Amino acid sequence: MSSSGQPARARRELFGSRWAPAPAHVRELGLDAGLPAGFRAAGVVAGLKASGRPDVGLLVCDAPEPVSAARFTSSAAAAAPVMLSRERCELNALRAVLANSGCANAATGRRGLDDAAKSQGAAALAVGVAPAQVALASTGGISQYLAVDALLKGILQARAELSGDGDGAFQAAIQTTDAFEKRACLEVTLPSGVVRLNAQCKGAGMISPRYATMLCFLQTDAQLSAETAELLLGVCVRRSFDRISVDGQMSTNDTAILMCSGASGVRVAGESEDELRLGEALDALLRALAIMIVADGEGARRIARVLVRGGDGEAAEAVARAVANSPLVKAALHGGDPNWGRIVQAAGAALAGGPPLALDVEIEGTQVCSGGSSIPYDGQELARAVARAEVEYAVSLPGEGAETEVFFSDLSHEYVTVNADYTT
Amino acid sequence: MSSSGQPARARRELFGSRWAPAPAHVRELGLDAGLPAGFRAAGVVAGLKASGRPDVGLLVCDAPEPVSAARFTSSAAAAAPVMLSRERCELNALRAVLANSGCANAATGRRGLDDAAKSQGAAALAVGVAPAQVALASTGGISQYLAVDALLKGILQARAELSGDGDGAFQAAIQTTDAFEKRACLEVTLPSGVVRLNAQCKGAGMISPRYATMLCFLQTDAQLSAETAELLLGVCVRRSFDRISVDGQMSTNDTAILMCSGASGVRVAGESEDELRLGEALDALLRALAIMIVADGEGARRIARVLVRGGDGEAAEAVARAVANSPLVKAALHGGDPNWGRIVQAAGAALAGGPPLALDVEIEGTQVCSGGSSIPYDGQELARAVARAEVEYAVSLPGEGAETEVFFSDLSHEYVTVNADYTT
Repeated sequence: MSSSGQPARARRELFGSRWAPAPAHVRELGLDAGLPAGFRAAGVVAGLKASGRPDVGLLVCDAPEPVSAARFTSSAAAAAPVMLSRERCELNALRAVLANSGCANAATGRRGLDDAAKSQGAAALAVGVAPAQVALASTGGISQYLAVDALLKGILQARAELSGDGDGAFQAAIQTTDAFEKRACLEVTLPSGVVRLNAQCKGAGMISPRYATMLCFLQTDAQLSAETAELLLGVCVRRSFDRISVDGQMSTNDTAILMCSGASGVRVAGESEDELRLGEALDALLRALAIMIVADGEGARRIARVLVRGGDGEAAEAVARAVANSPLVKAALHGGDPNWGRIVQAAGAALAGGPPLALDVEIEGTQVCSGGSSIPYDGQELARAVARAEVEYAVSLPGEGAETEVFFSDLSHEYVTVNADYTT
Repeated sequence: MSSSGQPARARRELFGSRWAPAPAHVRELGLDAGLPAGFRAAGVVAGLKASGRPDVGLLVCDAPEPVSAARFTSSAAAAAPVMLSRERCELNALRAVLANSGCANAATGRRGLDDAAKSQGAAALAVGVAPAQVALASTGGISQYLAVDALLKGILQARAELSGDGDGAFQAAIQTTDAFEKRACLEVTLPSGVVRLNAQCKGAGMISPRYATMLCFLQTDAQLSAETAELLLGVCVRRSFDRISVDGQMSTNDTAILMCSGASGVRVAGESEDELRLGEALDALLRALAIMIVADGEGARRIARVLVRGGDGEAAEAVARAVANSPLVKAALHGGDPNWGRIVQAAGAALAGGPPLALDVEIEGTQVCSGGSSIPYDGQELARAVARAEVEYAVSLPGEGAETEVFFSDLSHEYVTVNADYTT
């Protein structure tokens, strides 16, 4: 087994990847900086997790006219909290989020929807807002029913503990098998003033024994219109959480919610320089968090980016996903093996039935394949390059136009161990 | 780690799976029974493999009017031998096959095609037929060039060794990392008489460090029209090699060729009872070989079938493939873990963007999910059922009509070891 390359799971630095550097106008604050003005949060132990770890989180926006935006999994087997939030919430004016770990409330049918509705009603009562202003998010075992009584007690306790620096506790309540915290407290300098931007995020793909899901909650004290919040979150999610794969497995529960209190008084108008700068900050943050999720993939030793250029959008997307999800490519990544034939194989399979594929392949800047055919290269240099903590594959398809990327982790022994060997 | 369940890689019995029983009119002969009348074969060491194992196989049909049919990978990165065979051969009247292991001759561009053409010409000269009557098949490392000089010497040597019982040597020359031989000598009783049907097959999916590919060569002394051969091979490949997945990775080199000498004098007319019976025999044989390939998947401990009913054909196919290729489902299969939430998750992801999915799930006859929702079941009985050597998952989608199946293997530590840790 190759021992070169830093173990990716040790990564904790938010902007540590070359693929998601911090913009100049974004400053990282300490993780004890607290939430942006207008937000309170808490996280408590309600007993949903057998481990006794925190499992219920409550997040509240106290602004008179809060603005929000949300994105959810597109799975046809979406969990009850996703269905309820999507269909019954005022997603552009949320005042609270109730999140739990220890149970996904997925594949639970009508009873699951009833349980979610009860939780929503209870949280609304507890924080004094309308049920439609409370979004739900769950992560944990699919096919298990929610322990509603325990959850309600947790809501009461969390309400009592809500505070402006409760984001650490909230983060703890949404984590499952994450090896490290994915949390951020940022200060963003816009032309019109300085605003805060925080994130609490969990996930290591749909990869853990009985757990799943990525969740991401974002808060800013900037003053945005609902349209701007919707636009910024939509664009940034497409460039981050939509572009990662640990094991190609879409969760039943993925959720990302941006909430804006406006408490800073700094107004971010549509199509302004402020919007552009805030968008850059959000983009960098979400890409950094997405890459952290990949780096935290169960057993991950190395992470990679596959960049596909040329062809049409559909072909580029198919090739990028095929490479990122190929167990052969991922196992080679794990072994620090420059076995690029597997990239050609994955691309050929992705475009099966099509004409012979004259693709170019570069690994860390070294071209190994031109027009579909092997070319000479420095094998020793390549071997060194693929043994590092991050590896970049670039694939060029014939034709102009498309460009896409997917970030992914390797396939390791630990992945198999975690996902297979926990039963007795 | 569960120790129940026979290790699937120990499987050697051709008709050992409940999913591919031998029809009553098919009798297994010993593997020393020799080829059907009208065929000769040989396998030799030409030095293409560093291991010094056999690597060049030659198969000849001596019939005056041979009939054949062939199927190839649909990869857009098809190897040179596939492109050449598909475009330049009389695929319904082949007289010979030149097969090699130790090099896939894929991603080798124009030089690869030239090398393939030289090999074809040499084999044609050696056995005294036209080049268009010689099909090529290669398996081995992608991106490596063929050692043509060594191959030509191998052809000469193989010609000298051609014999009616050379199928064992031919089989040895096409194997790569196969843990066991996938070969058959059958006697098939048709209404019009008794015929022979042989197969030499290699493959464990596109799963090995530098190797790939499934190859299957079939010979019968039955007398078929080209249309009948085409029909039978086409139907049977769709029900066998098209329905398996070790790791979801389509090879650049997959090839299946049926050759018919007619030497038995037993004529199999189109739409006759003879055709039906021969079709049943070929179907059972190809399904048995396909399941053997899955069982020989690197590190495989258990194999499974996912049967999807209902919905439309496209949805059923998407769900079946998603379940069979899900690393989570495969890891659970490995661990003998009845974690059926992963089946719901995979199905939901396969039909992402669609309406909420009211699917039923059964595992080994025990229903665990009804209308998308968990139902009570005997967990202990289920745990025992999924610890056996073969596990069946049945998924029902809303609506009538479609039915499809995919056979697959588990995801094991050995898979990672073989595919990652062989460098250095």
